[in-house]
Amino acid sequence: MSGNTIGKLFTVTTFGESHGPALGAVVDGCPPGLELVEADLQADIELRRTGTSHFTSQRREPDTVRILSGVFEGRTTGASIGLMVENADQRSRDYDKIKDRFRPGHADYTHQQKYGFRDYRGGGRSSARITVATVAAGAIARKYLRERIGLTVSGWLSRMGPIDLEPVEPAFAYENPFFCPDPARVKELEEYIWNLRKQGDSVGAKVTAVARGVPPGLGEPMFDRIDAELAYAMMGINAAKAVEIGDGVAVASQLGSEHRDELTPDGFRSNHAGGTLGGITSGQDLLVHVALKPTSSIQVPGWTIDLDGNPVEIVTTGRHDPCVGLRAVPIVEAMLLIVLMDHFLRHRAQCGDVVSRTPDITRPR
Amino acid sequence: MSGNTIGKLFTVTTFGESHGPALGAVVDGCPPGLELVEADLQADIELRRTGTSHFTSQRREPDTVRILSGVFEGRTTGASIGLMVENADQRSRDYDKIKDRFRPGHADYTHQQKYGFRDYRGGGRSSARITVATVAAGAIARKYLRERIGLTVSGWLSRMGPIDLEPVEPAFAYENPFFCPDPARVKELEEYIWNLRKQGDSVGAKVTAVARGVPPGLGEPMFDRIDAELAYAMMGINAAKAVEIGDGVAVASQLGSEHRDELTPDGFRSNHAGGTLGGITSGQDLLVHVALKPTSSIQVPGWTIDLDGNPVEIVTTGRHDPCVGLRAVPIVEAMLLIVLMDHFLRHRAQCGDVVSRTPDITRPR
Amino acid sequence: MSGNTIGKLFTVTTFGESHGPALGAVVDGCPPGLELVEADLQADIELRRTGTSHFTSQRREPDTVRILSGVFEGRTTGASIGLMVENADQRSRDYDKIKDRFRPGHADYTHQQKYGFRDYRGGGRSSARITVATVAAGAIARKYLRERIGLTVSGWLSRMGPIDLEPVEPAFAYENPFFCPDPARVKELEEYIWNLRKQGDSVGAKVTAVARGVPPGLGEPMFDRIDAELAYAMMGINAAKAVEIGDGVAVASQLGSEHRDELTPDGFRSNHAGGTLGGITSGQDLLVHVALKPTSSIQVPGWTIDLDGNPVEIVTTGRHDPCVGLRAVPIVEAMLLIVLMDHFLRHRAQCGDVVSRTPDITRPR
Amino acid sequence: MSGNTIGKLFTVTTFGESHGPALGAVVDGCPPGLELVEADLQADIELRRTGTSHFTSQRREPDTVRILSGVFEGRTTGASIGLMVENADQRSRDYDKIKDRFRPGHADYTHQQKYGFRDYRGGGRSSARITVATVAAGAIARKYLRERIGLTVSGWLSRMGPIDLEPVEPAFAYENPFFCPDPARVKELEEYIWNLRKQGDSVGAKVTAVARGVPPGLGEPMFDRIDAELAYAMMGINAAKAVEIGDGVAVASQLGSEHRDELTPDGFRSNHAGGTLGGITSGQDLLVHVALKPTSSIQVPGWTIDLDGNPVEIVTTGRHDPCVGLRAVPIVEAMLLIVLMDHFLRHRAQCGDVVSRTPDITRPR
Repeated sequence: MSGNTIGKLFTVTTFGESHGPALGAVVDGCPPGLELVEADLQADIELRRTGTSHFTSQRREPDTVRILSGVFEGRTTGASIGLMVENADQRSRDYDKIKDRFRPGHADYTHQQKYGFRDYRGGGRSSARITVATVAAGAIARKYLRERIGLTVSGWLSRMGPIDLEPVEPAFAYENPFFCPDPARVKELEEYIWNLRKQGDSVGAKVTAVARGVPPGLGEPMFDRIDAELAYAMMGINAAKAVEIGDGVAVASQLGSEHRDELTPDGFRSNHAGGTLGGITSGQDLLVHVALKPTSSIQVPGWTIDLDGNPVEIVTTGRHDPCVGLRAVPIVEAMLLIVLMDHFLRHRAQCGDVVSRTPDITRPR
Repeated sequence: MSGNTIGKLFTVTTFGESHGPALGAVVDGCPPGLELVEADLQADIELRRTGTSHFTSQRREPDTVRILSGVFEGRTTGASIGLMVENADQRSRDYDKIKDRFRPGHADYTHQQKYGFRDYRGGGRSSARITVATVAAGAIARKYLRERIGLTVSGWLSRMGPIDLEPVEPAFAYENPFFCPDPARVKELEEYIWNLRKQGDSVGAKVTAVARGVPPGLGEPMFDRIDAELAYAMMGINAAKAVEIGDGVAVASQLGSEHRDELTPDGFRSNHAGGTLGGITSGQDLLVHVALKPTSSIQVPGWTIDLDGNPVEIVTTGRHDPCVGLRAVPIVEAMLLIVLMDHFLRHRAQCGDVVSRTPDITRPR
Repeated sequence: MSGNTIGKLFTVTTFGESHGPALGAVVDGCPPGLELVEADLQADIELRRTGTSHFTSQRREPDTVRILSGVFEGRTTGASIGLMVENADQRSRDYDKIKDRFRPGHADYTHQQKYGFRDYRGGGRSSARITVATVAAGAIARKYLRERIGLTVSGWLSRMGPIDLEPVEPAFAYENPFFCPDPARVKELEEYIWNLRKQGDSVGAKVTAVARGVPPGLGEPMFDRIDAELAYAMMGINAAKAVEIGDGVAVASQLGSEHRDELTPDGFRSNHAGGTLGGITSGQDLLVHVALKPTSSIQVPGWTIDLDGNPVEIVTTGRHDPCVGLRAVPIVEAMLLIVLMDHFLRHRAQCGDVVSRTPDITRPR
Repeated sequence: MSGNTIGKLFTVTTFGESHGPALGAVVDGCPPGLELVEADLQADIELRRTGTSHFTSQRREPDTVRILSGVFEGRTTGASIGLMVENADQRSRDYDKIKDRFRPGHADYTHQQKYGFRDYRGGGRSSARITVATVAAGAIARKYLRERIGLTVSGWLSRMGPIDLEPVEPAFAYENPFFCPDPARVKELEEYIWNLRKQGDSVGAKVTAVARGVPPGLGEPMFDRIDAELAYAMMGINAAKAVEIGDGVAVASQLGSEHRDELTPDGFRSNHAGGTLGGITSGQDLLVHVALKPTSSIQVPGWTIDLDGNPVEIVTTGRHDPCVGLRAVPIVEAMLLIVLMDHFLRHRAQCGDVVSRTPDITRPR
């Protein structure tokens, strides 16, 4: 209970550090009978892999996931599913420059103060690399939800620094290294990021994800609202500093007559709410946005303190992602899938035999 | 486990509906020996009470909290603390206009689809009134944290519709019905809201809260980051649609050299992170913002469907808050306090005997 | 999280002390649509009430339960159900004889050492009176399970001191003050207990409960076996010192050829296992036994220490149950019901759509 | 949440099947700074290893545990600790005789009915082999508790079939294949079990474990009593059918004057309670007994049904433990350690700053 578990019924417990022997997860509560092979997970893992392009950092590991348990004769058994990825790249590096000082913007100082010491190799437990395990777990949820209830999730980069992006062609997001959903804007992003790299600086980003085919009724009215569970999940991603559902922060400026989504027999007239009302899914598309801070590892020198509190200068060497947001899309998708899977099961537990006289207006009859 | 509990060690489980017999909470895990009387809770409850001014809705209930258990001879015993507020105002109203149709923007439709029917009296479980219990629970955390570690929390209205507000005089927030932290802007808010009321419309808002005196080390590196726990808590407030930590959504546009907070022996040079690094508090002020959507109950007529899916028109009668954000400050504070209390205990459990050689740069030596 | 909650999906969180203002529970996760009125709970509460006969202690309270929330128009809404029983009997007693010394066999000393002080009025949180809340919660589970899946639970006194009792006529257990399931043995019990009372002593007991109509498949293969969950629940009852499933401790002396229950198309040939195999219900009757220690409050003088550790003599005055086991049957039943309800929902969540080609041999075809 | 996690603060989540690729656990919540190497875990694993003698079954695997995460420079970091044991022995066996029929006394039938199919290889998830992971996790708790608070745990075989054993020489239990605590009785056990093996039958057993140096105050007064948590943990061990604390089932026959443990300034006069009062440890030795059913795999033919419900005969071939109890001691110890570790942290969280004026009578002054 140091908070390495997400979910209540479909639970994902992760372990591993950037440069330890291996990382992985235990996925518990998966329904039995789901056809599952390692390739199902590998596809999602490939999407987030480092080194996919020269715009992200250079760690070239295969990231091969192994299913250690919970699958028999190609189907999930209902038992806990052990997942593991060996850290091939454990070569001894030179950490002398950072082991005795705290990189600004990183978790170095807070780990030191919480635990009394820290695993300084590549960020230790706070490395973005750990999200491989989350992505693998999300792939299980993805397969179940798609096959059983036709729910699908997709995501894209919706902002990078000053550049706002519209989902002109969402599928295109998976065909370029920026997860950019607009073919016309790729060149702009490319130039911006090359320029950034030359300056040794980094930039923030925003990622958007949408779930389609969500059944109405998922979530809870009080604390475990679907919005709250999504906020928790998304803010649990490295570098996340804001989470928005539907219109998000813009609602603070909206009028009631503008925000509310009217209902008709053929569906809602708009979707300012982002697919949730009172913490419960409405059947509309569920829409979530995550703002991610710029990479803290930059080549611009800065000031910090050392282990004894003395002032020292620091500069990060080596190559790092100039924008962590570029790799966040698969992670945001995985988190969205894990939350929806968990609440699909929770809803079935409590309300599995409920019948409403009111038709589901979000589904074509 | 329909999600009416928040917290892992300091847990708050609430119950009650807008027009049921009573509402309340069970607070479990409170350390023993804390001096506690009902007046300690009543103070916070008064702050959020409806009817405090003509700018919020008119329910005039005393909201008197009773402590039913867990306190003996004026001190907490370590047992679960039962809290109850009777609903004095249960008078029979005329719900005929809404019981068979779904108010747009409300949880009516989603409750119907999840549970098969709904408690249509005043919003039922989804009423903002339920937050009285949360506020009472938060008051226990407030007292403990202030007395034992000197941690304090305060909040204010940081935006209402088009009006942005700076915390020019934070203490003034508690002296005006808008929780406005700037004496010079009260008149502007007053005019805006009167105008809104005349139009029968409503508006969104943003609330900001800050925790001061937070010890470094609270939170966890992976899913249960302090940011994630705050996001969950805040998004669990009625009408919340976005949560931001520190610079929030603005980080998507920031450069790394701009965002990172440099460390010095005398503290951090800035606080873009909002008091947390890698999911763990740094000792800086913890800063959180919540965007709340406009009240859905407005007098502007709109379209919806009835229980059988037929189109019908709807208009809300009676007086309602034109801005739910005006009452959200005490709730946001309570949520912040509950999360910090929970993580204070969690940190003591795991790291109670940790000593760091590095000085706490956020505390004057 | 001071352990006042039982259950994962159907959760019961209790509060209250023997002589505080009130006691109660929040029941969360109950499916919506269950018809429920206070009389449904009152029936079970009456069964456990003190003062029902001159064989148990003399507190004559009405124990009237109020439903504070979660029920609308006579049906559960899916929201948390608040339950409360006011403590009518809070009259000031003379605690001078026990407040500064620790009654042997009671929780006095351990409360003092854990919390630094204790609520000495009638046992405080450790009073058996608190189980009223558990019994009320169990009554909700009882109604749901009986109405929806035809599952029923009953219990009886299976031992008192040297007297072993067989369930000759189980229904008779509810018609005598001993919960004795054998009409021919009541007189024997009566004489034994009158004799005990004359000596000012007390005696232990064993209670047995059985669930009939349990569907196969409830429980989990690893830690949360149905046996383990029952053991936890039963050992959570005041005075419980042993829990047995099926043949219980006797299995330590059995041969494999004697213990294993053979399967036939018409059911199992025996039920040594007590209705569970590998932690999962088989569809057979689920059988659990609980051994309860003798009442610690006796009129035989004994030695103890005072608050400062000095030796002092102690003798309990006032009338107390000579056998706590006499009131335990409704509590054991409630615990069994709560565990089964929780696992019924858990099973539906994970395996709600599972179909087995193997017929259920425990059900007549 | 299929119940593969034990603990609330010190949590152990296990995965793996008898003949899958690997088994293991994620241990979360371990305090930082504990010196830990794989050899610390291996010692406990060796104790439970199959094939240690000809009295237990013949699987000859090395059972080498790997620490995958959570340890850096020889010390725990506070991050989740991944543990893995590869299943070296995955050779293809002939399961044709059991894959289409249900072994009586095994979890075969219940797995089929719960999940719709089952992993029939060596018991799948219900194999006793899985406890390797639990034992490894327990070894971490053992090291922490011994080093930090001087708490130690030991266990022994206290009964096998008709043979009762007294802890004449507890340390001797680790020097013979029966975990027999009495050197004079080993020969008797040996003869009994050889005879049993000749008959192709099996027998039940009882295991006892004791924790010494337990601080007073661990546990909770209501559901999460230390007794209840132990009962849950112990009943979660394969084959367990009864759990007793202190005098256990015998309390049902005891008088109050006989059972209660009087207090003196130099400690308690007896320990019928087994080290716990009102669900909270008293500082006395904590004593728990577990009754384990006889091995279900025996060579005596029996009747069962096949996958379609038709009657078939079954006989188990291959060699199996004639008494599972012989290997249970290390598992019972591990469970006891995990529960105590969890509650040590829980107690520190809530009561970390409590001071009692009453001396601890169980510790020499």
